Amino acid sequence: MNSTFLTDFLMITNFKTILFIVILIGTFYLMKLLERKKVNFSKRMISATILGLLLGGIIQLVAGFPDTTDNIPWIKEVTKWYGLFGYGFMDLLKMLVIPLVFLSIIKVIINMKEGENLGKLTFRSLFVLLGTTTIAAIVGIVIGNLFKLGVGLEIVQNNSEMKEISSVVDTLRKLLPKNPIKAMSEANVVGVVIFAGFIGVAINRLKKKYSDIIKPAKDLVEAAYKIITSVAMTVIKFMPYAVIALLANTIAARGIPALISVFDFILALYVSIFIVFVIHLIILALNGINPIKYLKNTMEPLILAFTSRSSLGTLPVTIETLTEKVGVEEGIASFVGSLGANAGMNGCAAIYPALMAVTIANMSGTPMGFSFYAMLLVIIVISSIGIAGLPGTATMAVSVVISGMGMGNYFSLAGGILAIDPILDMGRTMLNVNGTMVTTVTVAKSFDKIDKEK
Amino acid sequence: MNSTFLTDFLMITNFKTILFIVILIGTFYLMKLLERKKVNFSKRMISATILGLLLGGIIQLVAGFPDTTDNIPWIKEVTKWYGLFGYGFMDLLKMLVIPLVFLSIIKVIINMKEGENLGKLTFRSLFVLLGTTTIAAIVGIVIGNLFKLGVGLEIVQNNSEMKEISSVVDTLRKLLPKNPIKAMSEANVVGVVIFAGFIGVAINRLKKKYSDIIKPAKDLVEAAYKIITSVAMTVIKFMPYAVIALLANTIAARGIPALISVFDFILALYVSIFIVFVIHLIILALNGINPIKYLKNTMEPLILAFTSRSSLGTLPVTIETLTEKVGVEEGIASFVGSLGANAGMNGCAAIYPALMAVTIANMSGTPMGFSFYAMLLVIIVISSIGIAGLPGTATMAVSVVISGMGMGNYFSLAGGILAIDPILDMGRTMLNVNGTMVTTVTVAKSFDKIDKEK
Amino acid sequence: MNSTFLTDFLMITNFKTILFIVILIGTFYLMKLLERKKVNFSKRMISATILGLLLGGIIQLVAGFPDTTDNIPWIKEVTKWYGLFGYGFMDLLKMLVIPLVFLSIIKVIINMKEGENLGKLTFRSLFVLLGTTTIAAIVGIVIGNLFKLGVGLEIVQNNSEMKEISSVVDTLRKLLPKNPIKAMSEANVVGVVIFAGFIGVAINRLKKKYSDIIKPAKDLVEAAYKIITSVAMTVIKFMPYAVIALLANTIAARGIPALISVFDFILALYVSIFIVFVIHLIILALNGINPIKYLKNTMEPLILAFTSRSSLGTLPVTIETLTEKVGVEEGIASFVGSLGANAGMNGCAAIYPALMAVTIANMSGTPMGFSFYAMLLVIIVISSIGIAGLPGTATMAVSVVISGMGMGNYFSLAGGILAIDPILDMGRTMLNVNGTMVTTVTVAKSFDKIDKEK
Repeated sequence: MNSTFLTDFLMITNFKTILFIVILIGTFYLMKLLERKKVNFSKRMISATILGLLLGGIIQLVAGFPDTTDNIPWIKEVTKWYGLFGYGFMDLLKMLVIPLVFLSIIKVIINMKEGENLGKLTFRSLFVLLGTTTIAAIVGIVIGNLFKLGVGLEIVQNNSEMKEISSVVDTLRKLLPKNPIKAMSEANVVGVVIFAGFIGVAINRLKKKYSDIIKPAKDLVEAAYKIITSVAMTVIKFMPYAVIALLANTIAARGIPALISVFDFILALYVSIFIVFVIHLIILALNGINPIKYLKNTMEPLILAFTSRSSLGTLPVTIETLTEKVGVEEGIASFVGSLGANAGMNGCAAIYPALMAVTIANMSGTPMGFSFYAMLLVIIVISSIGIAGLPGTATMAVSVVISGMGMGNYFSLAGGILAIDPILDMGRTMLNVNGTMVTTVTVAKSFDKIDKEK
Repeated sequence: MNSTFLTDFLMITNFKTILFIVILIGTFYLMKLLERKKVNFSKRMISATILGLLLGGIIQLVAGFPDTTDNIPWIKEVTKWYGLFGYGFMDLLKMLVIPLVFLSIIKVIINMKEGENLGKLTFRSLFVLLGTTTIAAIVGIVIGNLFKLGVGLEIVQNNSEMKEISSVVDTLRKLLPKNPIKAMSEANVVGVVIFAGFIGVAINRLKKKYSDIIKPAKDLVEAAYKIITSVAMTVIKFMPYAVIALLANTIAARGIPALISVFDFILALYVSIFIVFVIHLIILALNGINPIKYLKNTMEPLILAFTSRSSLGTLPVTIETLTEKVGVEEGIASFVGSLGANAGMNGCAAIYPALMAVTIANMSGTPMGFSFYAMLLVIIVISSIGIAGLPGTATMAVSVVISGMGMGNYFSLAGGILAIDPILDMGRTMLNVNGTMVTTVTVAKSFDKIDKEK
Repeated sequence: MNSTFLTDFLMITNFKTILFIVILIGTFYLMKLLERKKVNFSKRMISATILGLLLGGIIQLVAGFPDTTDNIPWIKEVTKWYGLFGYGFMDLLKMLVIPLVFLSIIKVIINMKEGENLGKLTFRSLFVLLGTTTIAAIVGIVIGNLFKLGVGLEIVQNNSEMKEISSVVDTLRKLLPKNPIKAMSEANVVGVVIFAGFIGVAINRLKKKYSDIIKPAKDLVEAAYKIITSVAMTVIKFMPYAVIALLANTIAARGIPALISVFDFILALYVSIFIVFVIHLIILALNGINPIKYLKNTMEPLILAFTSRSSLGTLPVTIETLTEKVGVEEGIASFVGSLGANAGMNGCAAIYPALMAVTIANMSGTPMGFSFYAMLLVIIVISSIGIAGLPGTATMAVSVVISGMGMGNYFSLAGGILAIDPILDMGRTMLNVNGTMVTTVTVAKSFDKIDKEK
């Protein structure tokens, strides 16, 4: 008989696997203690982040900071188990995305007062989203040049695998919900938003004449929305636990040497993110929002975005924070939040492709001048619409932009950078979510739909 | 840098593409003007048809009436963009099909009065549908022989790709909704009808004893139905715009010489369609319906079916027209309409396969006699059940019938005809929808469920 | 012309096909007569079982008890047609599984009284399920050894196709409902249970403070549950007819010689099933339930499970029987029933893999000792969690267990047994369902939630 089956099946073949699972559970117990001692949620989130970083670092230390973790089975097992807790939590959050988006879009529309306008709301949201995208792209271009990314690494190369780019026409067609149930089943958020929009507008139109007939549908939307947000709050309570597992997982799975080889790029990315973040805070200040208070209040979605690397998975937390803590009206928070998780992503679709374009241009010896930069900006802004907010879309965005700049043949030069993508994805996703929140606040302000505790 | 990326991405690489997009928008503006001047809807639909034909013709003219449009990039781009408007509109209509069918079937059943009978309704609907299918098949056989389709084109050929035919048992099994959510997600209309039927019958049975408990479900069905039909009416308002784009698209994408080579077949098809259409009107007259008034009232679904080539996509318009303009009771319109969009299609599943069978028999030298025609009729009527109402099903029907007649090996002889299929599909789909409407009116009449204006 | 198309299409190419379809309809008429004479349901179910066995036997007789039915077209046709009636009925039952599970889980939770506990219910259910699984596995091991299965058939063999086994971590992740609509669409029962659980708990939490807002959702759940159970009762009425077709189908499709070659195995399996069944009844007696009365009351789901070979398809009948006839509280019946149809299956995941392991160990000359048996028990119990309750999962369970015992290379030795799987599946599935019912009764008893008749 082979006793390895059971251990294979359980993904526990090594003493170290058990050790680190026990340690993870130990940190969970610590978090539980903090919870019992009524330490507030934000502090627990920060503690979780620190614990996650430490735990990931210790795993790397025990493994002897290997070049790669691919051939270390126990790290694979540990990350699988950590992933179960971390990504399992994200699964539960994602479970809420479709019902939440569907219900909240209907709700925002049927609760609109006379004179308010869905078209205006959509227009302003896209305007601010694309505005911050443009700023982020410019920052990326400037920083990329200051860091001289790719200079000195010129290589001639000619063929490379590229993701197929579909035209804007095909993209738009694909987003239309040919079948609302299928759109829901395939988590086509934009399709669900469009369907819900039609439903909401229809309810509004029928409100006066057929108020009695449609009341059950309206009441059900309100009830279901209440229930789903309550489920969201239940799930969110487990966030600190998930953050430890998610962060330790990401750190543990990377080879440190791999990070060092592209250290310049990582640094340039995080510097760019920091600058855009500061710009975001300035935009908020111009809107009369105290940036310090804002940071305190929005720490949770930011940390979750950073650790989970999923804008869409973070959406329920984003909406809840904007509503409960920042004081944005429920409907606007849901609507703009849903849009921002799918379009105009400051990190994934602006800074990152901008840096990559500069890097690859330098590596491939492509000359850069004003027309190059102007074209780059246009392509980034256009392609930032209609890229879905799931892990991996940043690579898609880069693929579109690089080929758009005529450098498709040199795409494989970026291999080293793609290998450490999760490290980059953390910062990018956090900035996406912050961009969405800043947009929401700006739009809400312009409609005077923001109040009370900041 | 290559500036062609952006143009590729936007599908605008040629001045002519921009020109014809601008012209399309110009025609939209014209339609908007007509709308503002309160020109009635039917007149706007006719104007749109004429504009669409003209626009398609002009594109062909500018392209110099090419043999094929496959190697003319700007036509491809124009048709993509026109398709975005045209088929985008159809997508929104299709979005409503599943909720509309689900809700309306439940509604028809729970609103049935004592003594009314679902089985009787189903039976009569299928009887009339298959009756008109038989008539249409006979017309197709007669016209096909009068036109001597395929005579003089005898070729010997032996192998050919055929679609696999599944037996009637497998077809029936496939239609059963093993999982209602999956059936909805896959747009299995018959499955949704069956599930909704069970729900409706159960609500009826519980109506007396558990009236209080089930009331929320009943009220919700009524509310949701009201909302979905309201959404349908909103979408339908854009129909004239879509018709221009759809029709121009179909005309523009065809090479005129390709049409001429199979002109006999096109003519035979449209003559057959015309004859069956007249027979339909006679059936209506026998039911005491004024054919002229009927044509005026049902112009919209007929034009939409013609231009969109989708019986299923047209369904929301068909139901709305039957209810609002022809005066058929809501439930019957939905029920029979849903059935007719899936079975007994006069154009796609009767005339077309009949003509094809005659053509291929002549080309392949297959002798035709009474037993050939009798067999052909039987096969057509049987295969007309259970072919789903989406573009492309006509080819499926032909495939079944041709192989059923033992001429599967000669299927490839029909290549030239298949190449211009969209031109044929327009007439076929329109006749399908008319057959459905005539059936609905006939059945409604037999239940005395038709009233007021016409 | 070939007249065989029509017959192929209709699956009627032989006089015998027609004959046996007519005979089946004759037995239906007989059942209808019994129904009209108000013969009670259980007696009609028994009659159906006998008729099905007879009919299957007669078909075998007419075919001359062939080695295999693969090259007898008319048997294939007859079984297709019988399958249409039998499996068509099962499709309709399966149609109800997802709505029923979803609604009933919510209902059980929102109707829980203070002090009752969902966690406790889940824990006790799993405890009893896995307890009976262990017992069943032990019985399988003992009987397998008593029958010396595989002894004398030692063959050396080395390569074999195995189903890929996914680790427990992957299995758990896969069960989480990342998207509730997708979970419903893919009939992921565990995912639906989890989602419904969250919804139910949220409704409960909001019950006091937001009673008015959430009332429409609560009322709708009650209404929809009532409607779905009513649909279930309608479908269930046709069970006797389906049982005839299902059983005749299974018997007819097997070659008798194929059965004889593995007669030992069949016998060992059914003896094991019988013993575990008796143990089940003893457990019931210990719970104060009269086994005779129990058998009378639960005959319907048992017969349906036996003939249909689908635990999941039988679920609506299981729940209805437990509620209406055994007197278990609705919520507990639904909850434990849903769990039991997916985990801890006594027949498919315990007895069967145990017997197979013993057989293959003997055939491959693998030595068996205490550690072998201990390991086997552990692997069986662990793998019995998370195997979905559809036909074919028993093979999956065997695959997991055999490879878990390090005998993956010898898997193909079981070919002869797999060939007659449906014969084995009947007993296994019946035992699964009985295990679920015994668990439900035991758990209900422990919560004092069982009453009245029986």
